[in-house]
Amino acid sequence: MRLDEYNWMDIEQYLQNEDRIILVLGACEQHGYLSLLTDVKIPLALADAASQRTGVITAPPLNFGISPYFLTYPGTISLRLSTFLDAVEDIVRSLYRQGFRRFLVLNGHGGNDPARGRLTELANELADLKVIWYAWWSSHSVEAVAIKHELKSSHASWIEAFPFTRVCALPEGVKTPPAYQGILGAAKTREVFGDGVFGGPYQADPAIMDEIFAAALEDVLYYLDIR
Amino acid sequence: MRLDEYNWMDIEQYLQNEDRIILVLGACEQHGYLSLLTDVKIPLALADAASQRTGVITAPPLNFGISPYFLTYPGTISLRLSTFLDAVEDIVRSLYRQGFRRFLVLNGHGGNDPARGRLTELANELADLKVIWYAWWSSHSVEAVAIKHELKSSHASWIEAFPFTRVCALPEGVKTPPAYQGILGAAKTREVFGDGVFGGPYQADPAIMDEIFAAALEDVLYYLDIR
Amino acid sequence: MRLDEYNWMDIEQYLQNEDRIILVLGACEQHGYLSLLTDVKIPLALADAASQRTGVITAPPLNFGISPYFLTYPGTISLRLSTFLDAVEDIVRSLYRQGFRRFLVLNGHGGNDPARGRLTELANELADLKVIWYAWWSSHSVEAVAIKHELKSSHASWIEAFPFTRVCALPEGVKTPPAYQGILGAAKTREVFGDGVFGGPYQADPAIMDEIFAAALEDVLYYLDIR
Amino acid sequence: MRLDEYNWMDIEQYLQNEDRIILVLGACEQHGYLSLLTDVKIPLALADAASQRTGVITAPPLNFGISPYFLTYPGTISLRLSTFLDAVEDIVRSLYRQGFRRFLVLNGHGGNDPARGRLTELANELADLKVIWYAWWSSHSVEAVAIKHELKSSHASWIEAFPFTRVCALPEGVKTPPAYQGILGAAKTREVFGDGVFGGPYQADPAIMDEIFAAALEDVLYYLDIR
Amino acid sequence: MRLDEYNWMDIEQYLQNEDRIILVLGACEQHGYLSLLTDVKIPLALADAASQRTGVITAPPLNFGISPYFLTYPGTISLRLSTFLDAVEDIVRSLYRQGFRRFLVLNGHGGNDPARGRLTELANELADLKVIWYAWWSSHSVEAVAIKHELKSSHASWIEAFPFTRVCALPEGVKTPPAYQGILGAAKTREVFGDGVFGGPYQADPAIMDEIFAAALEDVLYYLDIR
Amino acid sequence: MRLDEYNWMDIEQYLQNEDRIILVLGACEQHGYLSLLTDVKIPLALADAASQRTGVITAPPLNFGISPYFLTYPGTISLRLSTFLDAVEDIVRSLYRQGFRRFLVLNGHGGNDPARGRLTELANELADLKVIWYAWWSSHSVEAVAIKHELKSSHASWIEAFPFTRVCALPEGVKTPPAYQGILGAAKTREVFGDGVFGGPYQADPAIMDEIFAAALEDVLYYLDIR
Repeated sequence: MRLDEYNWMDIEQYLQNEDRIILVLGACEQHGYLSLLTDVKIPLALADAASQRTGVITAPPLNFGISPYFLTYPGTISLRLSTFLDAVEDIVRSLYRQGFRRFLVLNGHGGNDPARGRLTELANELADLKVIWYAWWSSHSVEAVAIKHELKSSHASWIEAFPFTRVCALPEGVKTPPAYQGILGAAKTREVFGDGVFGGPYQADPAIMDEIFAAALEDVLYYLDIR
Repeated sequence: MRLDEYNWMDIEQYLQNEDRIILVLGACEQHGYLSLLTDVKIPLALADAASQRTGVITAPPLNFGISPYFLTYPGTISLRLSTFLDAVEDIVRSLYRQGFRRFLVLNGHGGNDPARGRLTELANELADLKVIWYAWWSSHSVEAVAIKHELKSSHASWIEAFPFTRVCALPEGVKTPPAYQGILGAAKTREVFGDGVFGGPYQADPAIMDEIFAAALEDVLYYLDIR
Repeated sequence: MRLDEYNWMDIEQYLQNEDRIILVLGACEQHGYLSLLTDVKIPLALADAASQRTGVITAPPLNFGISPYFLTYPGTISLRLSTFLDAVEDIVRSLYRQGFRRFLVLNGHGGNDPARGRLTELANELADLKVIWYAWWSSHSVEAVAIKHELKSSHASWIEAFPFTRVCALPEGVKTPPAYQGILGAAKTREVFGDGVFGGPYQADPAIMDEIFAAALEDVLYYLDIR
Repeated sequence: MRLDEYNWMDIEQYLQNEDRIILVLGACEQHGYLSLLTDVKIPLALADAASQRTGVITAPPLNFGISPYFLTYPGTISLRLSTFLDAVEDIVRSLYRQGFRRFLVLNGHGGNDPARGRLTELANELADLKVIWYAWWSSHSVEAVAIKHELKSSHASWIEAFPFTRVCALPEGVKTPPAYQGILGAAKTREVFGDGVFGGPYQADPAIMDEIFAAALEDVLYYLDIR
Repeated sequence: MRLDEYNWMDIEQYLQNEDRIILVLGACEQHGYLSLLTDVKIPLALADAASQRTGVITAPPLNFGISPYFLTYPGTISLRLSTFLDAVEDIVRSLYRQGFRRFLVLNGHGGNDPARGRLTELANELADLKVIWYAWWSSHSVEAVAIKHELKSSHASWIEAFPFTRVCALPEGVKTPPAYQGILGAAKTREVFGDGVFGGPYQADPAIMDEIFAAALEDVLYYLDIR
Repeated sequence: MRLDEYNWMDIEQYLQNEDRIILVLGACEQHGYLSLLTDVKIPLALADAASQRTGVITAPPLNFGISPYFLTYPGTISLRLSTFLDAVEDIVRSLYRQGFRRFLVLNGHGGNDPARGRLTELANELADLKVIWYAWWSSHSVEAVAIKHELKSSHASWIEAFPFTRVCALPEGVKTPPAYQGILGAAKTREVFGDGVFGGPYQADPAIMDEIFAAALEDVLYYLDIR
């Protein structure tokens, strides 16, 4: 149930009985051996699954996030912090104006966190606006799965290696997380991280990936249910 | 050949012999009976077809455009003019930094035209940047097809009613374009345009739609070929 | 009847019975052999003529527009896109606050078109704001005169060569429009266009120029009359 | 010798031997009984006179300044502080790019002073940029004339009442400057200042006005002469 | 009575009977032989003294001002003009929202003057906002003390050399103010001003400094008393 | 060794052998029973201690942070996200220009985290810039102390209750963290959190506070030592 499957009359109808919508924020950035759009694909997959079960509509994803540290990796497209914040604001304002009140943000990229500040500013201005921000990889349920299987996760490692984010065969083995200090610019980031994976196993058993996805989906359904 | 099918190493390789990329700009806005994402779907379909034939990669679409006049139609998500310009700038700068030099913008939404000004400002700053802006519906080839079949086209009418933009059965018949004067705000726009179609036949023969698409695709291939 | 001929008390009086005002937008940019201020002079001349016949007041012109492509031509002064949009917004907001409601924008420069987007955003916010945007050179009436005389027009060609925009003798003959592709930066623009004229005859018969002006003026009077 | 009397080729020629230009900044704001464009008319008159004697060209005036306190007086058009600063920056950058290096700013409005800060920021960035900022009414020479004739001057009083800024008969007598404290918004400003004059004689003897103008012009010529 | 000595409950209580607050604006910039924070220290000392006598609370100082001309002097930290204006706006809006209505700005740095324009814009928007802007060094009372002792004052000279702004022994003697023209960038400023003092005696008798401080404090108390 | 104890000549000398500086970022916001400036006081105390031992200078604190959620608590002064980012950028750029290369940011407020994104953008632009961002309360060493003493910490609880942040007697006992969901605006935040403490003990044994401070200080010294 993505917005693009509907016309405006459908949405007008939808708003008669519903004021929820799912927003997908992500990034177009290097993910090691995985798809450049990994951070969009994962929350979008969660949104699709949750949408199907609940009937809550999903807005088109914002395909670009805040990724200045990866600009040395070809294919990374980063919005300036200020641009990203404005875009998120505009999306929420547009939908709020039409009657949407409860927004579940499925964020796929840690660098997008500053948007929470802008959303607070909006909450100060727009009455009855309710926004829940969900970052699947850092949820307790997902972390519990990782801990259970004794898998350390990080950017572009096994935890993001779903069937639908793979675009080539993945390396075997485990990468030792490189040591570094401080805030890295893009040149230094590439120097430090090489293939772009931040450390840990490159892949995990498909059954574990299903477990991860299921745990995240349960969270999403839980948050969708909140009044 | 969309960017999301690749990882950064693939793109690094790609840049060895190629400096072209296709950008898809569109809108998430009312299109009468058609999909809210019509303005993304059409240029993206063109990009996919052209990508396949030429091997030129397509970046993820910017799913939102400048549509302030349609904000009264539910499901319309409009970026402020300033946000949109910044986003386009950031996308081009990111890719330029990595070696992309020739950008073919496939724009699906007339309201996005102000970005041409920002792209000119960028061309003043970034050496060897070459941007071609293509708006399929207003090209001579596409207009020629419309004229040949004596079909007047406008926003959300037959000319945008491809199989892949339809989300419901379309009305028969022809809508008389409503009369209006000046720059309309969103409230007035809805008052004037009602169902959101700006006038003309709601749909056309599938063969004509194929002809339209083929004409636009030929244009795209032509522009991709320019040095 | 320009604003500068009055003091604020006059305007307070004026607003008792009138809520219209004419705004002149233009550019300070190369116009081949013509005055650098051609794009202000023409709409201002139309405004003056229309003002005189209708009593509608004309605000002082914004003497600078969006002309990044001409910055290599000395004397061109271009506002960034963002600056221009803000300036137009501020002008309209100032006057709206005092009771002006109907604005006829006489725009002399095609590059200023993005302001239409900002004006739509304003129309979403300011109740009863009515803005008509008139670009004389692209109106049907003016085009009809050109077609009648079989004259192709373009930037800085005969169609802008009024007695009051001439600052030197004009070349005889017709310039072949140079071929080019895509969005040009200022360096490339100068390389392509040389003397700055985009093509067509450099000048036309004075009687034709009068016809052009009369046609445009009639348009202006028509738009001023709209409620 | 205003820029609008020339085409770009003339300016290219001019730049062969000259890198100076006069910028006129002003305001479109209430000036009591005087013209709403008083703050443009005075520096422009000075510029014209100085231009004629020195051959230094004058750019088209920026017809709007920073006048938020007068927005309750009809006909006042105020740019936001941020807009004005950006506009001044863009004007200087455009001309600098073409070879202009020495700018004499003739400012007609005290509220525009913040632009000095932005011009300093520009001076930090643009090598060899030299900007002189001249506010005629506060120069020692002009103040000396006022003192000599024992005339206290203020906004919209006699000191701005040149033949070319008058649009109606002026009151006789002297206005007592109203008392007030602090930074006034537009509503309070009107309440305090009524007719908009800040105090002092409404007009002065024409010979004194000539003296004032001559003193200011001498200053302008002096500053134009500086290397 | 600085804000930092209280918790929010104290301030809630305070607002029951009081709507005044003192804001300290300054700069972190070269002051010759004096402390880099001279422009904060002086108004803060005045604020403390006035606070103690009146019970009016002082907000934490904004430790940075607009000082682009001094960026070549190590230790100078300058906010862009636009940043500073936004910061001042945000401070006032935050406090206004909680019930503060009367703001006494004690400004320590002349370069911060543009904030007055932004405060006027705010006064147009926020009902009953009353802001008094006080620049101690240019007040009549302080100037009177200087004149009485026949001391010319300027940036970083004796008039700012209070015991609490001294960080080393000061030179004896008097500096001749260097001659210069126009708006100086940071490189030129250092070339012209050398040690950073703009001219006049480097120090004055402690008794005079007490007189200066007392005069300024009296002003502050006067402005605090205004309804 | 705060910057304000020096003049510019001292800093010029300092830069001969040193390129490090400590920046203190914090907030002026409700901290329950603690000082409104708690988030500045703590990192500043750490900076002072570290400064004393290492000779690395501390810049004046930015006394305001990003605290939109607390604007309903009197005394909270919040900068907009965009303002804060610009201010941090300006501070770093000013000092970088003078030769500072290594910045240790001691951040006292979690809401300021978005600045990391802007600092990454700067690291992409300014060669050899090295920024370490340290948030004392979330460091492993500090958390270890809390765990050792079985104390859960949160905003405005015991962990921030140092002798120098206390402004009144603190409650005994432990606050149960209130439950809530999603991103809260300021009105909702106050409704949920009441006295402003997020949960846990209101105070801890002075010896524990010393341990906390010592652990944080050790971190700071460690980060200062990094090349």
